[in-house]
Amino acid sequence: METVSASLDRIAILRTLDADERLALTRQCRWRRFRADEQIIDHLSDTRDVCFVVEGAVRVVSHSVSGREISFDEVEAGGFIGELAAIDGGPRSASVVARDDNTLVAFLAPRAFQELVTNRPELALMLMRRLCAMVRQATERIMDLSTLAANNRVHAELLRLARPNRKPDGTAVITPVPVHGDIAARISATRETVARVMGELTRDGVIEKRGSSLVIRAFDRLDEMVQEVRGVG
Amino acid sequence: METVSASLDRIAILRTLDADERLALTRQCRWRRFRADEQIIDHLSDTRDVCFVVEGAVRVVSHSVSGREISFDEVEAGGFIGELAAIDGGPRSASVVARDDNTLVAFLAPRAFQELVTNRPELALMLMRRLCAMVRQATERIMDLSTLAANNRVHAELLRLARPNRKPDGTAVITPVPVHGDIAARISATRETVARVMGELTRDGVIEKRGSSLVIRAFDRLDEMVQEVRGVG
Repeated sequence: METVSASLDRIAILRTLDADERLALTRQCRWRRFRADEQIIDHLSDTRDVCFVVEGAVRVVSHSVSGREISFDEVEAGGFIGELAAIDGGPRSASVVARDDNTLVAFLAPRAFQELVTNRPELALMLMRRLCAMVRQATERIMDLSTLAANNRVHAELLRLARPNRKPDGTAVITPVPVHGDIAARISATRETVARVMGELTRDGVIEKRGSSLVIRAFDRLDEMVQEVRGVG
Repeated sequence: METVSASLDRIAILRTLDADERLALTRQCRWRRFRADEQIIDHLSDTRDVCFVVEGAVRVVSHSVSGREISFDEVEAGGFIGELAAIDGGPRSASVVARDDNTLVAFLAPRAFQELVTNRPELALMLMRRLCAMVRQATERIMDLSTLAANNRVHAELLRLARPNRKPDGTAVITPVPVHGDIAARISATRETVARVMGELTRDGVIEKRGSSLVIRAFDRLDEMVQEVRGVG
C-alpha cells in the first residue's frame, strides 16, 4: 500500500504538526500516483479536495469562463493546491496535471482541510498569508494589465501616425512632432503617460526627435511591441 | 469618552463573540470619528491596523504603483477594512476616506487582529472565505481585462479595415467580407473569438453582411466602443 510508506513530512505548511498528528492526517488522505501529463484535477470537476504534492511536481492551469487557458504555475513536492475550493466550496479555478512521472499526490477532503487550518492558529496564519499573497499578486497583475494597456495604446497610436510614411529601410517620419496632449486625448491616457512612454522609446532608440519631425527609427520593433502585448488576450 | 458608548456589536465578523469578549476587544481598539472626505488611512502610511467601520461608511481607493487610482469600493457600518496589511505586514494597497460625516472607526493593532482571527476557528474560516472571495474577484477582473482586450482588438481591426471607405452617412463598406481566420491571425486572437464578436455585432445591428460585402452600419458607435475600452488604462 502507498499509504504505508508515504508521508506528509515534506509538506511545508504541515511542518508544525508533531509526528502523531501528521500520521493521523496521512491516514485521512486518499493517495494516488500520476504519470507525467496525467490529469489530477479537472477544473470542471465537482471535487473540493486539497492536493498535497508529496513527490514529483504538478502544473496548474487557470481557465477563463470561455475555457481559454490564461495562466500557468508549477507546484513542486512539498507544496499544495486547491485551497480556494476547499475553503469556500466554490468552483475550481484551475486544472492540475502531473508534470513529472510518478508524481504522488495526497488528497484531503474539504471539511478535514478546514478543520486542520482553522484549529491551529499557526496553520491558520500561514494559510491566511498565502491567500493574502494571492490577492496581492492578482492585484499587481490587474495593475500591470492596465498600465500595459496604456503604454500599448501610445505605441499603437505612433504606429498609426507613422504607417503612411514608412520607408523601405524600416524607418518612418512623423511631421510635425505629435503633441503629447493630442495623443493623450485620442487614446484616453494622461499626458504624463504619453510623455513617459515616449521618453522610454527615445531612450531605447526606437524613436528620435529631429528638428520638427519625429523619426521612428525601428518601425518593425515598435510593431512587434504592439503585437506582443496583443498576445495577452 | 467615545469608548464608553461605542460598541462592536454591529461588526458582522465579530457576531460569534460573546458580550464579554466583544467588550474586551472594544477596549483594545483605538476609536476616532471622521468628517466626510477626511482621510482614515493613507495608502503610503506605515500603520497595519484593521479598521472596523462602526458608524457611517468609508470609501476605499486602490492605487497603482504610479499612484493612479485604479478601483473604488465602499464599506458600510458593520464592515471592516485593512486585513491584508494586518495579516501579512505588507504595504497598504488602498487609501481609506470617510464617506459620511461622523463616521466612527475602531482601529485594532495587527497583532491583536491576528490573535483574534486565528484563535477562533469560526472567525478564521470567515476571514479565509473573505480572502478567497478577494482572490476570485481579482481573478475574474483579470479574465475580464483579457477578454475585453480580445473583443476590443476585433472591433479595432474592423474599424481599421472600414476607415478608408467611410461614408458621410456614418456607414462604411468592407469588400470582400473579411475572413475570420485572417482577422484572427492579424490580432492574435482565436477564430472562435472573432466569430463570436462578429456575431454579437451583427445581432446588435452594428455590422451586417450584404452579398460579398460587410457593411459597418454604425461606424461611430463601433468607434465609441473601442474608445470606451481604451479608457480602462
